[in-house]
Amino acid sequence: MILVTGAAGFIGSHVARRFNENGYKTITIDNLSTGKKENIPSGTVFIEGDCGDPAVIRQLEAYAIEGIIHIAGQSSGEISFSDPTYDLNSNTHSTLLLLKFAHNHNIKRFVFASTMAVYGDTDDLPVSETMPPSPKSFYAVGKLASEHYMRIYAGLGLTTIALRLFNVYGPGQNLDNMQQGMASIFLAQMLRDGKVVVKGKLSRFRDFVFIEDVVDAFTKAYLIDNRTDFSVYNVCSGYPITVGDLLKTLQGAFGQDIPVDVQGNTPGDMFGIYGDNNRIGQDLQWQSSTTFQVGIAQMVEWAKTL
Amino acid sequence: MILVTGAAGFIGSHVARRFNENGYKTITIDNLSTGKKENIPSGTVFIEGDCGDPAVIRQLEAYAIEGIIHIAGQSSGEISFSDPTYDLNSNTHSTLLLLKFAHNHNIKRFVFASTMAVYGDTDDLPVSETMPPSPKSFYAVGKLASEHYMRIYAGLGLTTIALRLFNVYGPGQNLDNMQQGMASIFLAQMLRDGKVVVKGKLSRFRDFVFIEDVVDAFTKAYLIDNRTDFSVYNVCSGYPITVGDLLKTLQGAFGQDIPVDVQGNTPGDMFGIYGDNNRIGQDLQWQSSTTFQVGIAQMVEWAKTL
Repeated sequence: MILVTGAAGFIGSHVARRFNENGYKTITIDNLSTGKKENIPSGTVFIEGDCGDPAVIRQLEAYAIEGIIHIAGQSSGEISFSDPTYDLNSNTHSTLLLLKFAHNHNIKRFVFASTMAVYGDTDDLPVSETMPPSPKSFYAVGKLASEHYMRIYAGLGLTTIALRLFNVYGPGQNLDNMQQGMASIFLAQMLRDGKVVVKGKLSRFRDFVFIEDVVDAFTKAYLIDNRTDFSVYNVCSGYPITVGDLLKTLQGAFGQDIPVDVQGNTPGDMFGIYGDNNRIGQDLQWQSSTTFQVGIAQMVEWAKTL
Repeated sequence: MILVTGAAGFIGSHVARRFNENGYKTITIDNLSTGKKENIPSGTVFIEGDCGDPAVIRQLEAYAIEGIIHIAGQSSGEISFSDPTYDLNSNTHSTLLLLKFAHNHNIKRFVFASTMAVYGDTDDLPVSETMPPSPKSFYAVGKLASEHYMRIYAGLGLTTIALRLFNVYGPGQNLDNMQQGMASIFLAQMLRDGKVVVKGKLSRFRDFVFIEDVVDAFTKAYLIDNRTDFSVYNVCSGYPITVGDLLKTLQGAFGQDIPVDVQGNTPGDMFGIYGDNNRIGQDLQWQSSTTFQVGIAQMVEWAKTL
């Protein structure tokens, strides 16, 4: 049985579903703070609670867990500024408790959803895993601390893999959460308001990676040859998309122009970033195979059906 | 009034005393987990409690705090392996709460006791502040996360300075805590057992810095010109002392040979490290002015009076 935390959320639900489809049994922990119960794939055992709560983690004792994919967590840099303590518990203490559980139960693989935000603002693009991190939000600090914990536990015999996710987008992304997910925030505004409010300049850029490609990265990371170490991988397309390009691609998929209102920056938000994905290509034979146009078209098609 | 957290401990008590002597009013928070109430300098206001507890931090509202020197925290890499959650709360959540307090109360300076342990094991010696950290203990991960938090708060207008302390030693070090402080652990064993048990090889080396020099670093950091940024400084002698040299220097100060029993390594303990102190020398006109022989002699003289 594989524990996929956060399976009521966007990424977690897709990952759990894929493992179910591949014949694994899955179990999840989710506090439903931003996720929705109906997102949890059928067949996945559900424990409602917070991964930062030791009493919740103790409930896992009743199950034969053979691997952990830790995706649950507060996932907005913006929100981390309003409640850094919750962020620390959700993103860092949770990892500590799950690593301890994994170590105590001889679990061999621990895969973690980290973030490109650990790199902070840098002119040295594309960012690669060899560069020193310089996180700019509490969210990113907590994710980076989790990676360090994983490196320590790797030294104690647990195989740990951190996937630094860039801007994940696609069908199933939460259109109700207006503080997380650039593509979903804009899409939600287009559908509901008929206009888009952009926090920050149109020339900012991000590296967008399609949800199904991200799920591929999690499955490949989980199935990595059994080795006792810590690995960290960028999960990204390898090229930049500006906010302006994103808006045009969304408008193209809608087949109509939509007004855009440009406002100030979000604290801790990065001006522009894209990643180098050579390491994950070489080690895990992973690639970002869905083009941005195809991915956005699928996302808009899905959103129209809601 | 200056808040010096952890003033019942070795470093905190010396720092608070120096500020008192220099005419400042001081207040401290200490949970007395390893510190002793009698160490708190007379004249220092004492709040008993944990800096990771929001209710304790709220008690500070009653005082006019103009600066914060955050020294309290679980200070053993070894202990951090047995209770990582306590370490995270003590060393990381505490910093978050105090930074938030400082930001909300327009406090201009925040000085933090960080650690050389953030560097981890490296062959690239001496370590300097420009090198990417690679912490090997939960303790070091938490201290590094605190530094990142400080960098974020510097961006919000708070002047923050992290002092990466190397092996601090001297009179007043806790001879009862056998899990923290290499010089004090050996000295305590010599006094009580007439022999020394060494966990790890005699060829390991550390960078020892005398308590009064460390206090100088805190006062100079606190009195730094008012500027809005984050700075990080090594506080170290700049040269390595082996465990064997330490034992010989202690024996020399005692004037007698003492048997040594060498045992296995402590998890997460570093083989050898010493630091580059050029940055703090240039920016703060600080230097490590007490020689190792003089410092150890003073420490032994003090210990004999107990």
